[in-house]
Amino acid sequence: MAVEHAHATPRAQTGVDTSRLPTDRVVFGPDRPLRLDSGAELPGFTVAYRTYGTLNATKSNAILVCHALTGDQYVAETHPVTGKRGWWDLVVGPGLVLDTDKYFVICPNVIGGCMGTTGPMEINPATGEPYGLSFPVITIGDMVRAQAMLLDELGIETLFAVVGGSMGGMQVLEWAVSYPERVFAAVPIATAPHHSAQNIAFNEVGRQAIMADPDWRGGAYQRHGVRPRGGLAVARMAAHITYLSEAALQRKFGRRLQDREAITYGFEADFQVESYLRHQGITFVERFDANSYLYITRAIDYFDLSTRNGGVLAEVFRGTKVRFCVISFSSDWLYPTSESRLIVQALNGAAANVSFAEIQSDKGHDAFLLDEPAFLKVFGGFLTGAGWHRGLEG
Amino acid sequence: MAVEHAHATPRAQTGVDTSRLPTDRVVFGPDRPLRLDSGAELPGFTVAYRTYGTLNATKSNAILVCHALTGDQYVAETHPVTGKRGWWDLVVGPGLVLDTDKYFVICPNVIGGCMGTTGPMEINPATGEPYGLSFPVITIGDMVRAQAMLLDELGIETLFAVVGGSMGGMQVLEWAVSYPERVFAAVPIATAPHHSAQNIAFNEVGRQAIMADPDWRGGAYQRHGVRPRGGLAVARMAAHITYLSEAALQRKFGRRLQDREAITYGFEADFQVESYLRHQGITFVERFDANSYLYITRAIDYFDLSTRNGGVLAEVFRGTKVRFCVISFSSDWLYPTSESRLIVQALNGAAANVSFAEIQSDKGHDAFLLDEPAFLKVFGGFLTGAGWHRGLEG
Repeated sequence: MAVEHAHATPRAQTGVDTSRLPTDRVVFGPDRPLRLDSGAELPGFTVAYRTYGTLNATKSNAILVCHALTGDQYVAETHPVTGKRGWWDLVVGPGLVLDTDKYFVICPNVIGGCMGTTGPMEINPATGEPYGLSFPVITIGDMVRAQAMLLDELGIETLFAVVGGSMGGMQVLEWAVSYPERVFAAVPIATAPHHSAQNIAFNEVGRQAIMADPDWRGGAYQRHGVRPRGGLAVARMAAHITYLSEAALQRKFGRRLQDREAITYGFEADFQVESYLRHQGITFVERFDANSYLYITRAIDYFDLSTRNGGVLAEVFRGTKVRFCVISFSSDWLYPTSESRLIVQALNGAAANVSFAEIQSDKGHDAFLLDEPAFLKVFGGFLTGAGWHRGLEG
Repeated sequence: MAVEHAHATPRAQTGVDTSRLPTDRVVFGPDRPLRLDSGAELPGFTVAYRTYGTLNATKSNAILVCHALTGDQYVAETHPVTGKRGWWDLVVGPGLVLDTDKYFVICPNVIGGCMGTTGPMEINPATGEPYGLSFPVITIGDMVRAQAMLLDELGIETLFAVVGGSMGGMQVLEWAVSYPERVFAAVPIATAPHHSAQNIAFNEVGRQAIMADPDWRGGAYQRHGVRPRGGLAVARMAAHITYLSEAALQRKFGRRLQDREAITYGFEADFQVESYLRHQGITFVERFDANSYLYITRAIDYFDLSTRNGGVLAEVFRGTKVRFCVISFSSDWLYPTSESRLIVQALNGAAANVSFAEIQSDKGHDAFLLDEPAFLKVFGGFLTGAGWHRGLEG
């Protein structure tokens, strides 16, 4: 328990000073290392998290929320860095789908992240310097293993539900496969059983954009008091396009001009969509660490449930008692419905308890973060039904 | 006719030395400026081009091939920089769709390009320095106006056909609208009547990647003897993803590893798709100019046929005698079939002579460059039919 973030040197504080974040933390000492899929170990690490609601006496009402690539633990409260609303405050709160009057909601920042959980921007206790690229490459499995250790620490043996979208959905699947006895219900949303070639390609563009920025300094930018702002902004811009559908971009922006009557015959942001995208890039850089972006995208690339058990996806779910609700969105081209169907088919092949809904929406991948009534109805209905079986209702 | 590329200074030769390219050229002197849509003028300019086949006595067999964003005039011969095959040698040649035993095929490098036609890397005669960002922003209309001046110079009043894919298809549409009396038949392939919000967004990511590279030097990299290689490679990588379909990427690469048995838990190119994409970026930088990339993508963004004539697309084609063949590919998500249908609907609304084919292919946007038998059959059949009407057949 010796490692504390208060040791962060001023040189490390070119991004967010995580030692000052309002967050709960569990600090694991060298006696409780995190064993990684790569074979490496993190000899001491911190998991930063937030909770909402109250754990009941039988500890049967805990729901784990798993965040996406650029998400964090600030699910249902003002973000301490950006000042914006919690990223899922439409879903988590009193009377909402994840009803904090009924459930105890826990959301940890993932291993490799940059909001207080140990990641490449934090201090390596062995050197007293930020990890940078000496941080070991992590996987979705490693993220989940750290979450399981957090739950042990909180005294929670079994989760009523584990839920999440996008990379969060991959963690949900990983939980159901690696810790089936600790999960009652699982809701993987807008996700896939493995990362597709096209998505690996988009991630690689983002990484190359970061690494091409001279201020990346081979990953050691903190030591030099700089940050690869331009590269990280470009990475975010490229990724952001994949989060929206063409229809959503057309409806939101079309070819409308930004605060001008006519095109300027120049390289300023003539079009609203350009202005929007630049804004996405610039604001992202203020809250996210470039090396975290490299590590987390790599974890996503590496995700492939079907490589276990001889490459047959159904086999990884064989005998599972977890109740699943798989949800996709019709206009999501990052994780299209066809990839959710692979999960459903595998669960059917394993005779698992699964319901599936494709939500009609033209908002693309980001629909899972938005006010989509049909989505919220399916999601909430499933949890209520599962709650009856778990004895949480009525 | 005073401006010659032999004046290019060594400082300008950080990219391709265009003065040594094996190409035909027409040099327009200050007496014949290029009037631009922006209101600016190019007071002297060069159009580099290549021809294949022989112009007949009545000059009725000329076909203009318009190239795409990163194409050039080397349609059907070994590329002088890359040593690769001509980009459309499946289409242009003896006995092929653009049969050089029958037709006289002309392909100019576009204004703003970097293979000998005047663009931002060429010397500004007013300063003796490379244009860089002092080059005026150009449009698809400007590209076509320069081509019309080239044809005047070659003594070709009327084109039997103007053909091209992607940005080449935009030039085809522009030709049909701006010079309908000079075009007998038009074949816009895998294109759109305007650039969509999503496509503007992808172009903007590419531009931001270039501009974020410190070696871009505000566009004056030639003066400093450097080039924004990293930024341009990232721009190419992001764009390249949009040229392929998800199915094509899955079939070509899937999640297969590159020369290794297992993932390495690192940031090397573990996956074949990463290796492929990096290769695309690296090789592109050897043959293309970063500022040209900025200018040409901007011309594409600005393309919107429907802004003329009060925003009604059918009106721009009103009374046209041009025979159209519009071709799209089912898996093209850069210029999806729905956008070709807008062209067809407008042509129908104008009671124009139009045939339309959506080619079933899973190869994405790049299908127009590949050996797609159904595409070549439709394309060739249309030209043969038009040739009968033009008196070129039988």
